[in-house]
Amino acid sequence: MKLLLKIAYDGTSFCGYQVQPNCRTVQGELNSAAKQLFGCECDITGCSRTDSGVHALSFFATVEPKDDSAPKIPPFSVIRALNSILPSDISIKDAYSVNDEFHPRYDVVSKEYVYLLSNGNTKNPFLNKKALHLPKPLTDHQIELVNEACSFLLGSHDFTSFMAEGSKITDARREIYSSSLRFVDDSHELLVFKISGNGFLYNMVRIIVGTMLDIAYGKKAPSEVESIIQSKDRTKAGQTVPAHGLYLNKVKYPDNHIV
Amino acid sequence: MKLLLKIAYDGTSFCGYQVQPNCRTVQGELNSAAKQLFGCECDITGCSRTDSGVHALSFFATVEPKDDSAPKIPPFSVIRALNSILPSDISIKDAYSVNDEFHPRYDVVSKEYVYLLSNGNTKNPFLNKKALHLPKPLTDHQIELVNEACSFLLGSHDFTSFMAEGSKITDARREIYSSSLRFVDDSHELLVFKISGNGFLYNMVRIIVGTMLDIAYGKKAPSEVESIIQSKDRTKAGQTVPAHGLYLNKVKYPDNHIV
Repeated sequence: MKLLLKIAYDGTSFCGYQVQPNCRTVQGELNSAAKQLFGCECDITGCSRTDSGVHALSFFATVEPKDDSAPKIPPFSVIRALNSILPSDISIKDAYSVNDEFHPRYDVVSKEYVYLLSNGNTKNPFLNKKALHLPKPLTDHQIELVNEACSFLLGSHDFTSFMAEGSKITDARREIYSSSLRFVDDSHELLVFKISGNGFLYNMVRIIVGTMLDIAYGKKAPSEVESIIQSKDRTKAGQTVPAHGLYLNKVKYPDNHIV
Repeated sequence: MKLLLKIAYDGTSFCGYQVQPNCRTVQGELNSAAKQLFGCECDITGCSRTDSGVHALSFFATVEPKDDSAPKIPPFSVIRALNSILPSDISIKDAYSVNDEFHPRYDVVSKEYVYLLSNGNTKNPFLNKKALHLPKPLTDHQIELVNEACSFLLGSHDFTSFMAEGSKITDARREIYSSSLRFVDDSHELLVFKISGNGFLYNMVRIIVGTMLDIAYGKKAPSEVESIIQSKDRTKAGQTVPAHGLYLNKVKYPDNHIV
């Protein structure tokens, strides 16, 4: 029995997704909740390794009890049961039965991340650790410059320039499907940077957002994104913005795995 | 020099607005930030005494340095300076010079509170301590029943039935201008109960929301609100819902005080 869970979590109080010693993690909480529910150790495999402070509106993980005699619990009951066990900063949003071959990381077709920028004149206490507060609100013109720059990300490129130094990835080619910066609503207090692609390198979204802020502030021209990509040089791109504005927003799988 | 501050705060980590011993309060944080800015003790007077866990999107307080030789700082500089001193769960949204007679509590013309209800099938980790999660989402019909009940609150009534027992208020007459329950947006995940009036009794909004939930769940008929008001009996109304869904949303003053 293999279940796929759709999970949302507020990353503020976690040392990221993946289990590590002496630190609270999402996987660690899932491990102990699943053990309590199924009465045995379970294999928990996530779709991604989000960093400390990164949030998820839609994260996927599979749960597989290691003991074959574990009770067969229907997905809708698993949702309720796990939510009653899990702490308030993790929520199971949905659950599906999947076939044994399904892998939540290898089978990803596309992912979408969002990065929230708080654009008010003053800090919003409700966006603390949920969005990056910009020192000065961006104007419509600055937002246009960023969207112009976004167009140079589209397509398949070697994104070495947008990968954290020290990564062991050998093939840094990724395909970006969409990328934009928009206001969330008419209040203009919150900006959302959205990016979707077939995969992302370590810190890639946060380095892209840092580069886009350089473009908004006039430190780089929108068209420079093209030469930054070509340089394959991390130092040409912008800074890595903080983790707390980043959310894994969508993960797409092929339909045929849900049984 | 008297300044009126417009403040927003996330009430989660505060023992309410008003200073009390051995407990972190909004007024306590304002006191120490103002002392640091003006170099002397200041009188800080709030528009309301919000309870522990209650939030504010728009709370007002006056600041008056006790020492006449304190520097005269223009309001726009006070905003920046206080925001750089205050912790991240309080933000100064605006500041105005007011005349000496202005009183932030006595001069209130009307107030609006909102109460957020999380209406998703599953808990939303980002609304933890920010909204009351309903055990089962409300249907359109249930929301209609609540809005029907809301109409019986309008006008001037003795609201003793909706006042926490033990309150020392002798005149429980208050006028309600508007009251409604609506979805925040098309996602239907968040419901907002809004109520405005010339003043509110202790726990009044939280008891009204508890009563409205009884109406939604069919425990009371919408028209019973009328007889509950007439009974002047706290036991006839619903339960006091938790503080963490409540926000002071708007406070209106006469225009002539801003100088």
